[in-house]
Amino acid sequence: MNAESIRKLFAQVRARELSPDDAVAQLRHLPFEDLGFAKIDHHRALRAGMPEVIFSQGKTPAQVARIFKQLAQHGKNVLATRATGAQFQAVKKAVRGAKFEDAARAIVLRRDRVCYGKGLITVVSAGTSDIPVAEEAVITAQLMGNQVERLYDVGVAGIHRLLAHRKAISRSRVVIVCAGMEGALPSVVGGLIGVPVIAVPTSVGYGAAFQGIAALLGMMNSCASNVSVVNIDNGFGAGYVASVINRL
Amino acid sequence: MNAESIRKLFAQVRARELSPDDAVAQLRHLPFEDLGFAKIDHHRALRAGMPEVIFSQGKTPAQVARIFKQLAQHGKNVLATRATGAQFQAVKKAVRGAKFEDAARAIVLRRDRVCYGKGLITVVSAGTSDIPVAEEAVITAQLMGNQVERLYDVGVAGIHRLLAHRKAISRSRVVIVCAGMEGALPSVVGGLIGVPVIAVPTSVGYGAAFQGIAALLGMMNSCASNVSVVNIDNGFGAGYVASVINRL
Amino acid sequence: MNAESIRKLFAQVRARELSPDDAVAQLRHLPFEDLGFAKIDHHRALRAGMPEVIFSQGKTPAQVARIFKQLAQHGKNVLATRATGAQFQAVKKAVRGAKFEDAARAIVLRRDRVCYGKGLITVVSAGTSDIPVAEEAVITAQLMGNQVERLYDVGVAGIHRLLAHRKAISRSRVVIVCAGMEGALPSVVGGLIGVPVIAVPTSVGYGAAFQGIAALLGMMNSCASNVSVVNIDNGFGAGYVASVINRL
Amino acid sequence: MNAESIRKLFAQVRARELSPDDAVAQLRHLPFEDLGFAKIDHHRALRAGMPEVIFSQGKTPAQVARIFKQLAQHGKNVLATRATGAQFQAVKKAVRGAKFEDAARAIVLRRDRVCYGKGLITVVSAGTSDIPVAEEAVITAQLMGNQVERLYDVGVAGIHRLLAHRKAISRSRVVIVCAGMEGALPSVVGGLIGVPVIAVPTSVGYGAAFQGIAALLGMMNSCASNVSVVNIDNGFGAGYVASVINRL
Amino acid sequence: MNAESIRKLFAQVRARELSPDDAVAQLRHLPFEDLGFAKIDHHRALRAGMPEVIFSQGKTPAQVARIFKQLAQHGKNVLATRATGAQFQAVKKAVRGAKFEDAARAIVLRRDRVCYGKGLITVVSAGTSDIPVAEEAVITAQLMGNQVERLYDVGVAGIHRLLAHRKAISRSRVVIVCAGMEGALPSVVGGLIGVPVIAVPTSVGYGAAFQGIAALLGMMNSCASNVSVVNIDNGFGAGYVASVINRL
Amino acid sequence: MNAESIRKLFAQVRARELSPDDAVAQLRHLPFEDLGFAKIDHHRALRAGMPEVIFSQGKTPAQVARIFKQLAQHGKNVLATRATGAQFQAVKKAVRGAKFEDAARAIVLRRDRVCYGKGLITVVSAGTSDIPVAEEAVITAQLMGNQVERLYDVGVAGIHRLLAHRKAISRSRVVIVCAGMEGALPSVVGGLIGVPVIAVPTSVGYGAAFQGIAALLGMMNSCASNVSVVNIDNGFGAGYVASVINRL
Amino acid sequence: MNAESIRKLFAQVRARELSPDDAVAQLRHLPFEDLGFAKIDHHRALRAGMPEVIFSQGKTPAQVARIFKQLAQHGKNVLATRATGAQFQAVKKAVRGAKFEDAARAIVLRRDRVCYGKGLITVVSAGTSDIPVAEEAVITAQLMGNQVERLYDVGVAGIHRLLAHRKAISRSRVVIVCAGMEGALPSVVGGLIGVPVIAVPTSVGYGAAFQGIAALLGMMNSCASNVSVVNIDNGFGAGYVASVINRL
Amino acid sequence: MNAESIRKLFAQVRARELSPDDAVAQLRHLPFEDLGFAKIDHHRALRAGMPEVIFSQGKTPAQVARIFKQLAQHGKNVLATRATGAQFQAVKKAVRGAKFEDAARAIVLRRDRVCYGKGLITVVSAGTSDIPVAEEAVITAQLMGNQVERLYDVGVAGIHRLLAHRKAISRSRVVIVCAGMEGALPSVVGGLIGVPVIAVPTSVGYGAAFQGIAALLGMMNSCASNVSVVNIDNGFGAGYVASVINRL
Repeated sequence: MNAESIRKLFAQVRARELSPDDAVAQLRHLPFEDLGFAKIDHHRALRAGMPEVIFSQGKTPAQVARIFKQLAQHGKNVLATRATGAQFQAVKKAVRGAKFEDAARAIVLRRDRVCYGKGLITVVSAGTSDIPVAEEAVITAQLMGNQVERLYDVGVAGIHRLLAHRKAISRSRVVIVCAGMEGALPSVVGGLIGVPVIAVPTSVGYGAAFQGIAALLGMMNSCASNVSVVNIDNGFGAGYVASVINRL
Repeated sequence: MNAESIRKLFAQVRARELSPDDAVAQLRHLPFEDLGFAKIDHHRALRAGMPEVIFSQGKTPAQVARIFKQLAQHGKNVLATRATGAQFQAVKKAVRGAKFEDAARAIVLRRDRVCYGKGLITVVSAGTSDIPVAEEAVITAQLMGNQVERLYDVGVAGIHRLLAHRKAISRSRVVIVCAGMEGALPSVVGGLIGVPVIAVPTSVGYGAAFQGIAALLGMMNSCASNVSVVNIDNGFGAGYVASVINRL
Repeated sequence: MNAESIRKLFAQVRARELSPDDAVAQLRHLPFEDLGFAKIDHHRALRAGMPEVIFSQGKTPAQVARIFKQLAQHGKNVLATRATGAQFQAVKKAVRGAKFEDAARAIVLRRDRVCYGKGLITVVSAGTSDIPVAEEAVITAQLMGNQVERLYDVGVAGIHRLLAHRKAISRSRVVIVCAGMEGALPSVVGGLIGVPVIAVPTSVGYGAAFQGIAALLGMMNSCASNVSVVNIDNGFGAGYVASVINRL
Repeated sequence: MNAESIRKLFAQVRARELSPDDAVAQLRHLPFEDLGFAKIDHHRALRAGMPEVIFSQGKTPAQVARIFKQLAQHGKNVLATRATGAQFQAVKKAVRGAKFEDAARAIVLRRDRVCYGKGLITVVSAGTSDIPVAEEAVITAQLMGNQVERLYDVGVAGIHRLLAHRKAISRSRVVIVCAGMEGALPSVVGGLIGVPVIAVPTSVGYGAAFQGIAALLGMMNSCASNVSVVNIDNGFGAGYVASVINRL
Repeated sequence: MNAESIRKLFAQVRARELSPDDAVAQLRHLPFEDLGFAKIDHHRALRAGMPEVIFSQGKTPAQVARIFKQLAQHGKNVLATRATGAQFQAVKKAVRGAKFEDAARAIVLRRDRVCYGKGLITVVSAGTSDIPVAEEAVITAQLMGNQVERLYDVGVAGIHRLLAHRKAISRSRVVIVCAGMEGALPSVVGGLIGVPVIAVPTSVGYGAAFQGIAALLGMMNSCASNVSVVNIDNGFGAGYVASVINRL
Repeated sequence: MNAESIRKLFAQVRARELSPDDAVAQLRHLPFEDLGFAKIDHHRALRAGMPEVIFSQGKTPAQVARIFKQLAQHGKNVLATRATGAQFQAVKKAVRGAKFEDAARAIVLRRDRVCYGKGLITVVSAGTSDIPVAEEAVITAQLMGNQVERLYDVGVAGIHRLLAHRKAISRSRVVIVCAGMEGALPSVVGGLIGVPVIAVPTSVGYGAAFQGIAALLGMMNSCASNVSVVNIDNGFGAGYVASVINRL
Repeated sequence: MNAESIRKLFAQVRARELSPDDAVAQLRHLPFEDLGFAKIDHHRALRAGMPEVIFSQGKTPAQVARIFKQLAQHGKNVLATRATGAQFQAVKKAVRGAKFEDAARAIVLRRDRVCYGKGLITVVSAGTSDIPVAEEAVITAQLMGNQVERLYDVGVAGIHRLLAHRKAISRSRVVIVCAGMEGALPSVVGGLIGVPVIAVPTSVGYGAAFQGIAALLGMMNSCASNVSVVNIDNGFGAGYVASVINRL
Repeated sequence: MNAESIRKLFAQVRARELSPDDAVAQLRHLPFEDLGFAKIDHHRALRAGMPEVIFSQGKTPAQVARIFKQLAQHGKNVLATRATGAQFQAVKKAVRGAKFEDAARAIVLRRDRVCYGKGLITVVSAGTSDIPVAEEAVITAQLMGNQVERLYDVGVAGIHRLLAHRKAISRSRVVIVCAGMEGALPSVVGGLIGVPVIAVPTSVGYGAAFQGIAALLGMMNSCASNVSVVNIDNGFGAGYVASVINRL
């Protein structure tokens, strides 16, 4: 045990086998990892209310189930993203209470229902094809203790649909905007409100959409200054960033 | 002379030195270029009202002036795009009546003032930095005989500015939209109206704008179906396409 | 109900509980969405003769059938693009009169046979592999009420094939050109005629064709000024833009 | 005047020339822009404490001075980013009290010294070459009423320098991280703390750094979930997003 | 019939109903396509010894068989590239004498065994994975009447293998070099000999090979001046270009 | 036989049928390949302890088994990378003693157990998904006669995990670092130690990770100067380079 | 001297100090470079009529002059490409007879006027801006002893200009085609003739032309099979390849 | 002072004011940076013989001189890369003994002449234009205490030049290979020897060389397994990596 070697130092000082100066000198040469666990403690406190997360894509149902079961023992919420029905079948057998959120392609286990967020998070999507990514953001934010509202299918080519819900958006403390194709929606939303907008490019579209690159570039170049961006299709990341902001 | 060889064939037929059938057979083997000039005539008719155009970038003032003078002899409108003040000084000495359109970086000579366009062309720009490209489109469309209106600085991050002019846009027969950065404006404009929208990506922006690529991709992936796209910064092309449509 | 709050304002004015000036002031603060439905009406008028459209790719047969049935109730033409045989089997059971256009990979329901287009739209393709995209353009333009002619397999490496049909092209009011590989055909066609050319890059080719990027870049850089471009493989978009132009 | 037409409606209702129902019906058909100014008011409120901003790059000293003077009349803070010494000389003559922030390449006019931010914003930079971008973020956040601390030259290749300041970072409510080359710093910082991290890729580096693309991609793919990204070299955007978050 | 209208002209001239000059004038206005068939004749002569070619990829066995049968009626060699065993089974039933070249993934029908090439074509490949592309080049060149030799697996990381066959290469009139990965072999081969080298990048490799782009760029930048390049994996194109050169 | 022609020369000199000078002259004109085998010998010496290697991807089980068997006759270690279970089944039947390293996706035959490496090679991975690539590096280095240690799942977002093992890393003579996503780990590791670091970008990640390009660019731009890079997912290459260094 | 060590071997054999077998064995271990000079001789022969070439770009006038003078001593033609007027001034002082080819940006010294080429090389350019690259090809081919003809400004958007010169092109033994923008011209030219076409993409164009990439991709994907491609703006390479072909 | 707080802990334990267990608990909560300096010591030892380095590009002469002077006080070798003559003039005035290495574009101050390297480092370059990068590698390796040899202008298109020096290369313990254009040289060199090869892509070339990307990709895909790669034009990095290896 690491702490042991330090405790021993103190014992030697106490027993006057070692002067305080020599002890400091020795401490300097103790390998770094002897104090490493402090960081973990610190981290643990910092992560209160953060769910345990599994990225399921490319894992076998058995692997997902095994990791899910192990994480479930920590007593926190558990979230498996990019999950399939088959993976859920395996998890369900291993962990009571796990549920499949079909639209979000996510398996969730809800233990901690504390509300950590101070306001409303609204998740906006441009088209119906962006919904899986948007739902991943919704589930993530909910599991992290936030009140979440959805506003879907309000893309910029029919700008009146978005404007008709402007009041709803204005009530939000953080807004997540998911859009593929040209990725223009975050700029328009960002111009309507004064709170942070988290933009998620989606890989929706074809041809020169290039699996989300067009949307990503569009969002990086947003002319609205309150917009920042996460990775393509990264609904989880958007939900996480929004939750971290909403706790402030 | 090419026509000569054909005339000779007819003369031989007339003189009965050759039967019509043999003449047809010989004609088949005449090289193609003997009839080539016909195409030029045909082309000329088709191009009524089209200006003579010089792409000035990378040319010396003397070169621009020499070409401008030569083209001015055809009696049509002349347009030199991407021109500098120095190039204009050279042209002014060579051709009376040439004017410099500062905002459009263009030298123009207006001879033909016939109105070829059937309706209004509106040129919309997202930001003030897009104006040089927008003005190139305006000048091109005017020189090709169209009534043109400008609607500048109506980018999507302040969507109310655009909406406040919706009625003005609705009166147009063709709309040109110039935008850099995320290139989202054509989608919004396209969704508001039912006429053709010509989108021009501009190289405005920095970082991941990549000299107009972000805007270009955004426009290629526009979710409004009445949008088609021309090359980056190609205000001339947009004005030309719009004029061709407006003559229909 | 939104209109209710406005009607109440008028009632108060009528009852002299409110002066017109105060009413105007209050109206200014009414949320925007109270008037939103007006836009929808306006939009509806504008879209006369436009088909209802489903992008079928990535949807299950059941999903396509359900959406198709719902849209069919509007009494307009319905078009499902990128459809498979299996999707058609599901639609056929749900909607009488739906037909499968094999070459265009489209399911169509034709209700409105009004001719909205004023002239001929010609769809040109470079190779036989471009035909699915070209056919998508053809079906779209037909469903939007246009007379359409096809001119296929006239790529630039055998330029005489194209030239042999120049008269046919010259009769068109709008021309759509679909080409993969180097995407050179729109420039050649654009140089032969004086009407708008809508270029569609296709993902035909291999190696450095990069799924249509080579063709897209080629078309963006067309040296013919009457050419504008839509997204890779976007036959629907080309048909739509051409139809919008042909109604002018 | 737009409001006039609405006032007239109310007057007619009051005079009983029009029933409330008919007035509502007429109102629906009034053009949208008649109410547009309301939006501007709304926007104005929302933007309290936001500075007026000029992107100076590519503008002449005279242009910058003219716009700066005009904006200075609104009584708010004014910020000109990407400014040169020559531009500042011009501004200084036009506007009393304007100062040049050399390291940030910014001209500022400080009027509003209200503290809008609720906590500390720390701006971290990887190398000394990232400092201009970092300083732009610092100045922006300060002008928007935030307390800001700097932590510079703590790149990942000497990880102990960063770790030595971990406590300082932990006190922050929002952290901005500027890094070029491989753009790895935001991931490391994000892993150390639980608050939002705004990552700014800089165009520092050479060869395969590709003017900031390597850093941008690195940050988009950050393995720390509390990181979101703004455009390359966009210190202003990072300062703005951080300020918006810090007001929550 | 087109020729008819021309014959009529001649008849009118002969009957003196038309002067030769007027006939020429009329001829100018005859549509181009009336003479178009001449080009086809010309083309046919030019293509003596060129095989009929089918690009089989993406076609059904039935389609390949039908086209193959049709082309086989011209009495020339027929070549179907990128063919599968299933496609060959279909062709075999339709066309006697068709053979499957397994290594080249090609179906061939050899009718014309004239030797058109004046010298030897050597096909060099860097690795064993490049062989399918190399064999496509071999078969193409053989079908076009050339003597072909193979030199495989002589990549640059074992330069002695290549040097050991230098004399063999030196006997060639044209050399085709197929290489994936870094695409360095054509430069080395080009430096050893004084005849034309046709370089074919192959999509062999992984990671940053990017499906042949690395090899393509390498070959475009070859420091040997006698190298020109065809498309990625385009063994057919290389064989064709080499054959055209070898007939000179 | 090549050597024969040279031996004949010597015999002629010995028999005084040829002067030494003439023999030298003749030797100059002997084809190069007559001496080529010397190189192979030389090469063989140089490659002592290097395994025979098969890149199995894209090969049939039968092909892998046949090549494996053939190489196994040289008496050296044999390594088949990117192998599947099916390929191993085929190899197992053909070669006694072949084993499947599941985690590394490799088939190995260990004959030579000499320790060629002078120190320890440590293989570090950022995440669990990088393990297949890391294991390929481990197996390669082991087969080439090195002592290898693993240090997995120590990515930069939890920097304490890495620091806790700093002493372990410090004992290494060469370090291999495998990382996907932003590829930041090699920079951090490189900054902690003074020995060579071989960085391997992996194709782990999604969205803007672009199959390893983000990681590759990150590593190319590493701010630690003791880092060099091999191809994406190229665990074999990393193991090979590290082994070559560790023999010095 | 290398040959010395071999001669010594023969002397020892002659003196019977060494058996032929031992001599062969020793020869095998002689370093490779002892025979290296033979290659140089061989190469020299092979390069008869090839000019000495300097790539002047980025060199000082003094450097160009010094290298030019040195190469001029070999008695062959000398060609300095990408040269400036200043570089020529320096060369002119150092080498009598050197001339500046303005349009080709080349300095030439013509010594060898032998005609090595067997037929005509025609250099075709799409636009006037492609002429510098085309002229570099012309000068290169002329210096390498070929008869060259120019055919400029025959781009595909005015296809009749090209067709009018078809007969001229048909007389050529090799054709070089220079084109920027969409790079379509080589496909059209390739389709008209049966001889090899060397395509040169030029960096002419703007926006999405990407300094010649659009043209390069277009040419790589040419649908004419007799086309191969050299690097962007590489007129020298095209002239060299064409010359090498024309000597066959 | 940080150590102070720790010493205080020991003093309290010694004075029995604190039990060893409580002291350990308190230590855990001491901020990390209290031990940070230990790391710096460790680092310092590790870096014996490493030069102090300045990347001069983009810095003013005064800045370079100031930093150079400051670093010179550490008593180690100092290296300023990418330096200009003007920067050297400033340094020379500030630091006695500083010298300008023209070919390497570097300013050096040599203090430590200990030989740290165990063998020879050879720096190979493909063309004369690669020499500045190669020289940067040479100077770096020399300053880090290595014996270095140069082998320049041995590109793959004249493979005999390289082969003629094979014995020289074979004596090396590490080889650095600098090459632009297609970047093929490292593969060939790597195949000739059994020691580590550090490849440096250079930005030499034009057109599709893309400022070194073609060379970078070529080297990443090297078919020689003993090759690893550093950033484009990064001669310093190559010299550093080679030095670190050569000390092992």
